Formats: sequence, C-alpha cells, structure tokens
Amino acid sequence: MGHLQSIEWRDGILRLLDQTRLPAELVYLDCRTHREVAEAIGRLAVRGAPALGVAGAFALVLAAREARGTGEDVPHFVQKAAAELRATRPTAVNLGWALDRLLATVEKARPEEFEALLLAEAQSILEEERRAEAAIGRHGQALLADGDAVLTHCNTGSLATTGIGTALGVIRAAVEAGKRIHVCVDETRPLLQGARLTMTELLAEGIPATLICDNMAAYLMRRGQVTAVLVGADRIARNGDVANKIGTYGLAVLARYHGIPFYVVAPLSTPDPAIPCGEEIPIEERDPEEVRRIGGVLVAPAGAPVWNPAFDVTPVELITGIITEYGVARGEIGRILAGWYGRRN
Amino acid sequence: MGHLQSIEWRDGILRLLDQTRLPAELVYLDCRTHREVAEAIGRLAVRGAPALGVAGAFALVLAAREARGTGEDVPHFVQKAAAELRATRPTAVNLGWALDRLLATVEKARPEEFEALLLAEAQSILEEERRAEAAIGRHGQALLADGDAVLTHCNTGSLATTGIGTALGVIRAAVEAGKRIHVCVDETRPLLQGARLTMTELLAEGIPATLICDNMAAYLMRRGQVTAVLVGADRIARNGDVANKIGTYGLAVLARYHGIPFYVVAPLSTPDPAIPCGEEIPIEERDPEEVRRIGGVLVAPAGAPVWNPAFDVTPVELITGIITEYGVARGEIGRILAGWYGRRN
Repeated sequence: MGHLQSIEWRDGILRLLDQTRLPAELVYLDCRTHREVAEAIGRLAVRGAPALGVAGAFALVLAAREARGTGEDVPHFVQKAAAELRATRPTAVNLGWALDRLLATVEKARPEEFEALLLAEAQSILEEERRAEAAIGRHGQALLADGDAVLTHCNTGSLATTGIGTALGVIRAAVEAGKRIHVCVDETRPLLQGARLTMTELLAEGIPATLICDNMAAYLMRRGQVTAVLVGADRIARNGDVANKIGTYGLAVLARYHGIPFYVVAPLSTPDPAIPCGEEIPIEERDPEEVRRIGGVLVAPAGAPVWNPAFDVTPVELITGIITEYGVARGEIGRILAGWYGRRN
Repeated sequence: MGHLQSIEWRDGILRLLDQTRLPAELVYLDCRTHREVAEAIGRLAVRGAPALGVAGAFALVLAAREARGTGEDVPHFVQKAAAELRATRPTAVNLGWALDRLLATVEKARPEEFEALLLAEAQSILEEERRAEAAIGRHGQALLADGDAVLTHCNTGSLATTGIGTALGVIRAAVEAGKRIHVCVDETRPLLQGARLTMTELLAEGIPATLICDNMAAYLMRRGQVTAVLVGADRIARNGDVANKIGTYGLAVLARYHGIPFYVVAPLSTPDPAIPCGEEIPIEERDPEEVRRIGGVLVAPAGAPVWNPAFDVTPVELITGIITEYGVARGEIGRILAGWYGRRN
C-alpha cells in the first residue's frame, strides 16, 4: 500500500517528510546532522510517538559520524547529542526509550565501532516498530465490526509511525479485512494534525471519512454516529494511565457518558515502567502563538494570554482496552502491559 | 463602561460592527436596506441571539422605508422582507420572535403608519434587551464567588447583544461587584468567536482571561481550574433543553462528570414555548469551507468531507440553572420559564 513515508534512511542521510507543510506541499528535509533532526522534532516537522523514536535513533547515527569529522571524543559527543535530542519533546517516551537503547548498544564498544552499531540498532527499531504495527492491526481490527463509525484524534497513521500506523493502522487493517468503516476525524487544534494529516492519509486510500472540529465530537456521539473511539498514545504509565494529544481525555469522558468503547492503540515502546501513574508524566506546554495564529493568520488579540498543553492524561478507568502487538490489555491493564513489556525488552 | 457597540441606529441607518473582521480591524457596515442586513446576518457580521433579534427588527424598519421608495404595497413588502430575514439563521429564536413582534404591531395599522410604528417597536426591543441584561447580571453575579474561575464558550458579550451581554454580562457584573474572576475562554471553532471576540472584550476591560482550544477544557476541569461554566443560548425549548453554539453540549457533559455547575444565561426572548423539547429545534448546518479554511488558509485537503453544525442541544438534565432577567430557574426549569415567559409577553 502506498503510504506516505514519514522517515527514510538512505545513503547516510535521514530524509524526513516535513509534516508542517501538509496538506499544501510535499516537502522533504534531508538531515545530515543530529541538530537538524532535533530542530525538525522541535517544530513538529516529524511527530508521532513511534516516529520520534525512530528519528531520534537515526539522529544518533548522524552524531557518531559528525564526531568522527570533528575529531571530538566519539562517546562523549554521542552522549551530548542524545541529551539534546531527549530535551526536544518531554512527553512521548519512545524518543527517550530509543536513545537509551542505542546508548546501551555502544556502552562497551570501541569508538570506531559506534557508527555501525548504532546504525544496526536504529534499523532494528525501525523494523520492530513496523512489525509491531502490523500485529497491532491484526489484534485491533478484530474489535471492529462491519459498519462501525470510528472517531479518532490527532494523527496515528503512517505519518506518525514507520508502518501502517497505530489507531489508524487498526482502521486500515479492518478495511483490508473487508469491513466497511467510516472514520470521524477530529481536526485536533492547535496544530490540526487530524485535518491536515489524518484526512490526507484517509482520502489517499479512499477510506470514507468526515472531518469535524474537536468540539463537535460530543454531539456526534449523542446522535449515535460514533460506535468506537480509537486514539494513539505518547506515554503509558505503569498503572495504565495514558498521556496523548490534548483533547484525548475529554473524548474518554464523553465516550464513557455515551457508552462507547474507548481504545488506546500503542506499541510496547510506549509504556514507561518507570512512571507509576499519569500524574507523574511530564506534560509539554508549547508556544502560545500556536493557539493565537493559524497558518500565520492572527485569530486572537496579539499577546492574549494562552494555555497550550500539548498533551493530557486519561486515567486507566476510562480506557476500555489498550491494543498492542501482543494483544488487547483490558481490566488490569497496567499489570498485563508490564508482563508483555518484560517480554519485549 | 466603553463596551464595543455591535448595533446602532442613527439617522435612519443601521450601523453594524463587522465582527468577521475582529480582532484585526474595526470596520462598520452602514445598512440602508433590509437585504444588506440579511446579508450581514448570513455571513455572521452580526451574530449572537439577542443582537440578531434587534438587527432583524431594525431591518424591517428599513424595509418599510424601501417600500415607500419603490411604490410597492407596504404591508406585502414588509411581510416578504420578514420572510427573507427569518430564513437567514434558522436556530436562534430571537430573530423570528422580534420579527413577529414587529409584524403584530402593524397588523391593523395603515401603510403610512408602518415605518413609525416599526421603529418604535424596534427601539423598545433594543431597550428591553438592554434592561434584561442588566437584570440578568444582577441575578447571575450572586452565583459567583470571589476567586471563581469561569469557563465560557463562544461570545456572549456586548458584541452578541445590545447591553453588557448574557454569560459575559454576569461575569462583568461580578467583577463590578468587586469579585476577582478569572475567565477561561474556549476559542470556539470553527469561527473562533471566543478567541476573536470574547478575548477582545475581556482584554479591553482588563478582566483576567486565558484563551484555550476547545479540546483543552476537559483537562482544565480535571486540574480543578474551572469552578463554573457559563454559556449563552440560541433557543430554549419548553422543557428547558437548550440549543447553543456547537461545543456547548460537550461542556455540559464534562461539567457534570467533574461536578462543576453549568449555567445557561439568556433573556426571556430566547425560550420558545412553541418547541416542546430540544430534538425539535432546527439545527443550522453551515458551509464546509468554514472548517476547511481558517482566515483564508486551507487547513485540510481541498474537498475533504466535513460536518459543520453551528449548534448543538444540551438536555435540561445537564443544566444546573438558567439565569434570566426574572431570576435563576432551577429544577423544573421548563415550568418556571413558561411562567416567567408569560409575564414578559
């Protein structure tokens, strides 16, 4: 299937699709240094928890090569690069998880081996994520029935990942299994990843979809036009609480009120066993200008005070299940995830 | 207090503040014909249920004068103009209510008396609305405590009305009574009346306010940073169900889940005794381009399917009380409103 490719490693260059330019333009960024990747992550040219892990991993490969060019101490340079990359987005755990995996790989290696070892590990992560998404799709699509209307938030498709996507991957797998699925897409303010990215992916594949503003979801549920809610995740605490794009928590409350199942879809690179519960997950707050301006146009008084959290936390009791590559965790979600997580790592 | 004036009648001209140009520019439209007013209403240059009633009333005065100029039959011309105006916005009842009041005034009048009688009645409506808002402010502000954080949606200030506003009028009255109130303002997609209009009004008066995207309200409630929700209304059914700006229903569900009081603020020109319950209220669906574009910038794939209802319906069981010029209706809201409504009409 001809998915839009968010990340590609080719001839020593990390090629990123600049998602800030979609849907208007298809522009690629060729990154040759870890700093170019960090900058692309910071301004959300590449985003989505699984994609951030992969991009961060390849950025460390670039760092090892840079160190060679500068004559600096390679291990020290790579460590510094990892710290810089880690600081770009504090909420999604996949970035830090991937960086840690790469650093562990070279812990006892000689500096001249760094680049090759890091590259092999980055490619492993990319392949693992792709396979995980395929497995997630198989497990998740079994929960959807022919004729279902699925509400989704933000972008969880091939643009957010390296494969078919997480929540959007489940929808794709259901459609491939012959089920008729209608997708209701939250536009997802402030950065409109639903309108710009998810609608682009769905239209490209001919999956029926309707775009709504975030504040229309409740009324759509009331009218009986939503049969399931599927969202991604940026970090999952040990107890099963989920940090995801701002607006997710409200959808979970609304789904509960209307008796609609609410599923989180995420690979096992997203649970963070070091975090006991949702309140401990750091929530990134971004530039107020993201709210005051849309596409450069000022839509509020200049200097208006703004609160702009990029994520919120949904408590585990509002989550029907978490769909991972090992199956669907329900009930004692945290305990089940912890068991599966142990198997993967 | 130097409120922005949305509507002014001067020397036979209806001057409207073009609210589509705010906050960037202060542009006034001088309407000399009822059609110019109908066009301004249709594209939301003037909006807000109480303001629509007043604008519609003065548009009929213009129609009576136009009829004189054309030599057409005055009663017939005015009737036709009323039908045109009524068709512009189907949900807010105040428009139809004001048109009906003006038509009743001239039912048995001679054609040459029409213009003067219509003008007197339009001016009465304007004055009544202004007085009603002042009374609403007195009743409503008693419900707010020093230090409250009030979440509001869309614009219900002087721009939506002819006085201090409805929900925003209550906030103003509380501030004038010396209470410290912080206002959380939903930006209110798609047309951003919260970001563009409410923030402009609050900043102009120095009332502390924070702008959020609509999908951030739930998380703000979860964090304990909202102590009351105040919204306006476009039509209230006989049982107390309320049609208001899209997004209101979701806020009511979220407020209930978080144990936060949810008040509707509206003058008695907004209940419609002819409508038994919310499901019977006609809901206007507007142009998909309002969702696909923001300030002219395309934010979704061209031609993406869109659902764009301008309003939703909040069932009476989610409403803590309706604040009107006669007091606060609680419990059997519909029965109480019907009694008060009889006193006004």
